Amino acid sequence: MSRPSGRRPEQLRNVKITRNYTKHAEGSVLVEFGDTKVICTASVENTVPRFLRGKGQGWVTAEYGMLPRSTGSRMAREASRGKQGGRTQEIQRLIGRSLRAAIDLKALGENTITIDCDVIQADGGTRTASITGACVALTDAINSLQKAGKIDSNPLSNMVASVSVGIYNGTPVLDLDYVEDSNAETDMNVVMNSEGGFIEVQGTAEAAPFSEEEFQQMMSLAKRGIADLVKVQQMALAQS
Amino acid sequence: MSRPSGRRPEQLRNVKITRNYTKHAEGSVLVEFGDTKVICTASVENTVPRFLRGKGQGWVTAEYGMLPRSTGSRMAREASRGKQGGRTQEIQRLIGRSLRAAIDLKALGENTITIDCDVIQADGGTRTASITGACVALTDAINSLQKAGKIDSNPLSNMVASVSVGIYNGTPVLDLDYVEDSNAETDMNVVMNSEGGFIEVQGTAEAAPFSEEEFQQMMSLAKRGIADLVKVQQMALAQS
Amino acid sequence: MSRPSGRRPEQLRNVKITRNYTKHAEGSVLVEFGDTKVICTASVENTVPRFLRGKGQGWVTAEYGMLPRSTGSRMAREASRGKQGGRTQEIQRLIGRSLRAAIDLKALGENTITIDCDVIQADGGTRTASITGACVALTDAINSLQKAGKIDSNPLSNMVASVSVGIYNGTPVLDLDYVEDSNAETDMNVVMNSEGGFIEVQGTAEAAPFSEEEFQQMMSLAKRGIADLVKVQQMALAQS
Amino acid sequence: MSRPSGRRPEQLRNVKITRNYTKHAEGSVLVEFGDTKVICTASVENTVPRFLRGKGQGWVTAEYGMLPRSTGSRMAREASRGKQGGRTQEIQRLIGRSLRAAIDLKALGENTITIDCDVIQADGGTRTASITGACVALTDAINSLQKAGKIDSNPLSNMVASVSVGIYNGTPVLDLDYVEDSNAETDMNVVMNSEGGFIEVQGTAEAAPFSEEEFQQMMSLAKRGIADLVKVQQMALAQS
Amino acid sequence: MSRPSGRRPEQLRNVKITRNYTKHAEGSVLVEFGDTKVICTASVENTVPRFLRGKGQGWVTAEYGMLPRSTGSRMAREASRGKQGGRTQEIQRLIGRSLRAAIDLKALGENTITIDCDVIQADGGTRTASITGACVALTDAINSLQKAGKIDSNPLSNMVASVSVGIYNGTPVLDLDYVEDSNAETDMNVVMNSEGGFIEVQGTAEAAPFSEEEFQQMMSLAKRGIADLVKVQQMALAQS
Amino acid sequence: MSRPSGRRPEQLRNVKITRNYTKHAEGSVLVEFGDTKVICTASVENTVPRFLRGKGQGWVTAEYGMLPRSTGSRMAREASRGKQGGRTQEIQRLIGRSLRAAIDLKALGENTITIDCDVIQADGGTRTASITGACVALTDAINSLQKAGKIDSNPLSNMVASVSVGIYNGTPVLDLDYVEDSNAETDMNVVMNSEGGFIEVQGTAEAAPFSEEEFQQMMSLAKRGIADLVKVQQMALAQS
Repeated sequence: MSRPSGRRPEQLRNVKITRNYTKHAEGSVLVEFGDTKVICTASVENTVPRFLRGKGQGWVTAEYGMLPRSTGSRMAREASRGKQGGRTQEIQRLIGRSLRAAIDLKALGENTITIDCDVIQADGGTRTASITGACVALTDAINSLQKAGKIDSNPLSNMVASVSVGIYNGTPVLDLDYVEDSNAETDMNVVMNSEGGFIEVQGTAEAAPFSEEEFQQMMSLAKRGIADLVKVQQMALAQS
Repeated sequence: MSRPSGRRPEQLRNVKITRNYTKHAEGSVLVEFGDTKVICTASVENTVPRFLRGKGQGWVTAEYGMLPRSTGSRMAREASRGKQGGRTQEIQRLIGRSLRAAIDLKALGENTITIDCDVIQADGGTRTASITGACVALTDAINSLQKAGKIDSNPLSNMVASVSVGIYNGTPVLDLDYVEDSNAETDMNVVMNSEGGFIEVQGTAEAAPFSEEEFQQMMSLAKRGIADLVKVQQMALAQS
Repeated sequence: MSRPSGRRPEQLRNVKITRNYTKHAEGSVLVEFGDTKVICTASVENTVPRFLRGKGQGWVTAEYGMLPRSTGSRMAREASRGKQGGRTQEIQRLIGRSLRAAIDLKALGENTITIDCDVIQADGGTRTASITGACVALTDAINSLQKAGKIDSNPLSNMVASVSVGIYNGTPVLDLDYVEDSNAETDMNVVMNSEGGFIEVQGTAEAAPFSEEEFQQMMSLAKRGIADLVKVQQMALAQS
Repeated sequence: MSRPSGRRPEQLRNVKITRNYTKHAEGSVLVEFGDTKVICTASVENTVPRFLRGKGQGWVTAEYGMLPRSTGSRMAREASRGKQGGRTQEIQRLIGRSLRAAIDLKALGENTITIDCDVIQADGGTRTASITGACVALTDAINSLQKAGKIDSNPLSNMVASVSVGIYNGTPVLDLDYVEDSNAETDMNVVMNSEGGFIEVQGTAEAAPFSEEEFQQMMSLAKRGIADLVKVQQMALAQS
Repeated sequence: MSRPSGRRPEQLRNVKITRNYTKHAEGSVLVEFGDTKVICTASVENTVPRFLRGKGQGWVTAEYGMLPRSTGSRMAREASRGKQGGRTQEIQRLIGRSLRAAIDLKALGENTITIDCDVIQADGGTRTASITGACVALTDAINSLQKAGKIDSNPLSNMVASVSVGIYNGTPVLDLDYVEDSNAETDMNVVMNSEGGFIEVQGTAEAAPFSEEEFQQMMSLAKRGIADLVKVQQMALAQS
Repeated sequence: MSRPSGRRPEQLRNVKITRNYTKHAEGSVLVEFGDTKVICTASVENTVPRFLRGKGQGWVTAEYGMLPRSTGSRMAREASRGKQGGRTQEIQRLIGRSLRAAIDLKALGENTITIDCDVIQADGGTRTASITGACVALTDAINSLQKAGKIDSNPLSNMVASVSVGIYNGTPVLDLDYVEDSNAETDMNVVMNSEGGFIEVQGTAEAAPFSEEEFQQMMSLAKRGIADLVKVQQMALAQS
């Protein structure tokens, strides 16, 4: 079996994380998983949603969007259609949940951090790239709160990263691009933290149900890929 | 450890499937997982959505709703709020995807079957009950198509059922009710077919990341539970 | 003349009222007028709408919905269409108005009771069944407020019930089912209280204008039918 | 008893119908019931709604709106709130239904006439004034179709008019203005045709249930008032 | 060149301003630019929008609408389509901005004046007629605030009026009616105050780009036309 | 007077146009006016909107959006608010109109080109940068149609560019950045073609009405600035 891109089954695409990508946000990252490019910004507000008022804790939430022509054929703009589709809502709920799993909301104080993940070019794996980039933007936003003396301790206990795995032409492969994703028998997105704990596992049979053995193989690939992604995150954060 | 309900960790709630629950639909089922009660109806239309026209195949889709007071405190009615929330969309996409995994859409001909899952009383596990009941309603609708001579072969290759598993007070448990679900460290929904193939696995760390070992334990429970649910489906279908 | 169901012109369908139908609501009733089945729940909240704040009174309001396949052919779900249709709004305004006519809102204190009427199977007369069942659910909710010591006196002065009457094949008939309703020359919904006072009269000429004499005949039938419905309500409430 | 306006119980307000009020519409009427002023336009389109295609008949429908400051305090504009309220929908459904009761839709051919009733000043009775004015605008639109040779026979069998009646300070009164309407114990809108047939009767107890005797008194007043309104319509139509 | 209406290039249509057109609003004007007729009402509320709370100043805003059959063919009602179109929003933003240019919002105190401009008959120039009429309605509303002692000084420093100019058949013309507007090469709307200051200039090439010379000619016409419109405003206000 | 940026009054910001910025669109440009950065993509579809069907011509339209944190404080995402605001609609209408002024829609054939302008970083002048970048993306899209042999002649007669001018601290200045824009007395956006023809002139008095002399000064600056912008466009297009 060979992958359309020529990658080995366990090989990530070229992953790049560029910090301070735009100038206004407290955290702003361009994350690239090969040709998939997502701008992740973290915005801090000194307030909390209504359902958390007076509880002495903060909140982290996410929104997700795709530019209309980030894809091969133009999609209708959700703002002009008047609502966010089911897929968008699923993805932004997943991003928010994944990030909150790494945050001590009490230590965040009564602050809300909103992560916007906007896909400017899509080639498969936009949700996993979004989570991986969002965690870096979130880190920068938290650092800015600490530098400004607005919070005492670091509410972020560890990093969160995500990758897709799937069965393509009968072989488990890591980090599917669009061509692979469109033809995979099974597609699975895994979110883990930098200590090896699982945060989300979402596996979907596309063409045929998958077996427990296939499941195990995919999990192994995912663990390996996420360990690599965490290294890329850490290297990006090591740069001043 | 003991469960609030007194059940053993691997014990399902009392599961009941009542066919022909309402009179108009081609398939109509009341499914009960303990105090969780969902009406699943299957409606047949001799047409397909626009994106499938002229392709010689059918479609299966699902919608999900909760009566406003199916829950402990009244929720705003989605019809009066003017849109379906993100959770609703996630669940109805999951139900539709799960059922399509068991259907040969070519063999369905140019027919659309819409499954409506409406929760009249909620006590945890509404999505897993919905999938389990929906597959029985779908079977009845397909039988009606066959009896009417509108399709030649049975497009349904096997049954689909679903159950939740989770870590509650440190112990893996099957088929969480609301009290358990609200306090679980991890919550996982598994969809499988009657031949033991996996269709969807969605695990979410709630309180703390979960380990690979916990993951394995939950998967074992799920397999066992789904095998039992398939028996309940088959017994219900065996009655004329 | 004979009615499709074989009933006599002045004969109600078989009417059943089942209390405590679901477990969460303060009042929960399944009302059946023949094959028309509606779940009516009453939910109590210790607050009032903005326009009543600080006025020392409560509020009673209603919402109405039909499950998509409660009818012969599937209707689009209002939540997914993004709005409630005109018919739905008309009916829920009617139910709320009818119930408020029997309530002393001052004696209710600053509480809001929301009645949800959800049709699970429709065969004509869903609005009249809804009002008749809703009044029983409302009674149970008020009793729960009294038992909890939250209100001193009973704000409900009498029962409210409703029935349809119409001209079918030239003959005035009571409590039309779907087949009659679709072919009636005139359709009238009447709401009365248990003391014989009129609360709402809504008559509509469908095929031809109606005369004053026909009007009188329909009113007589309605009075008789409502007196019977009040007895069914009282019997249901007499059971503990 | 005396009415705030000094009118006798059975006295209509000053009613004026001005035809050709605006220049573009096939029928355009300003109707005034005292200080209540409504512009009613009838627009003809040579098409029918989807549900009537190919059935060889036409359609008559109505829309209703109020200018934001037609009332004592400014109401939010429905176009900017993003939806028509329940009251608006109830009224426009009533207007359309009432007009259709006087029309032979087969004789109208495959034409749609839309009546827009826009209230520019409100002082009670906007729906009854709308129906009364709309029927004149409809007549003009039908005449234009006949003059243009687009229909052979006149599909309008007779005129339709409407008036409100109510119990004010214990006395049945005709054609309530805003002050009376706000304080009436009972409010009833009656729609009749020019031959004395009833088309709609909608009675609502506001402060207290009403008796059968009160009901009869109101019906008598309504019949008398509508007979007078039909004369005003006919006089307006007699002018070229 | 001759204009379809026979007017000279620099000639306004017959302009009429009728004050106190409806009875409820603090300012109510019917403005007519030939066959274009707009009802402009000014409504005063003793409150300010959220973004101005506690800033010790007031607000002036505008909304714009067209009756569905104000135009040659019926337009869908924006309230039933569920949103205001882009053109409507552009116009109401323009009206509000233009009026605020003449108002000292501090001197207005914490009051909001909402101007509703509703077109009952359209024949070109509805936005310029709206601005011209709105300023008179605004003046009346401010006078009512002064008479009631709610504000000390007059916040309105001068009048605001507006007119369209364009190039029609190669000739610059003033105050285009619908026929001219539909065929103009260039269309420009100019808003000025009564002291000759420019408030808005919006020029759009329709058929062909315009030159600087054409631009100057249009500006000259506009100045002249607006000076005349201000006189009509002042005459209307001089009448008690 | 000195500008906050140290620029001379007639000096543009540093303007950069990067073609082929993303990979899917037929035309894709990143345009930068200093810190204002906009992605402009041109998408070709071989179809036309309904109102143009069968007329043998094409269409060019535009949509505009801002990433939520393109600005100093985060704005709510229009897709989640459920509608595009008035400012967005105004801008996208302006972009579309400006581009259509340079296009021969007949020569475009029955193709639609949609230009998406998405602001990733805002610092004043997003609409003028959008128009200037959009025209380059449009050119690339048209070239792709010509290369593919889908159209015979070039429908684009000349280039379109846009710049803002304003009165800042009493001095007319070119190409205002956000700080200047927020404090300008007057703000004007000018759209011209490469032959010196005016396409749109939109001037708005912010703090005080402007005089005819100020208007002339701003027009002179705009002409000069647009001539420079056209050179930048042409240089970008000269690169292969």
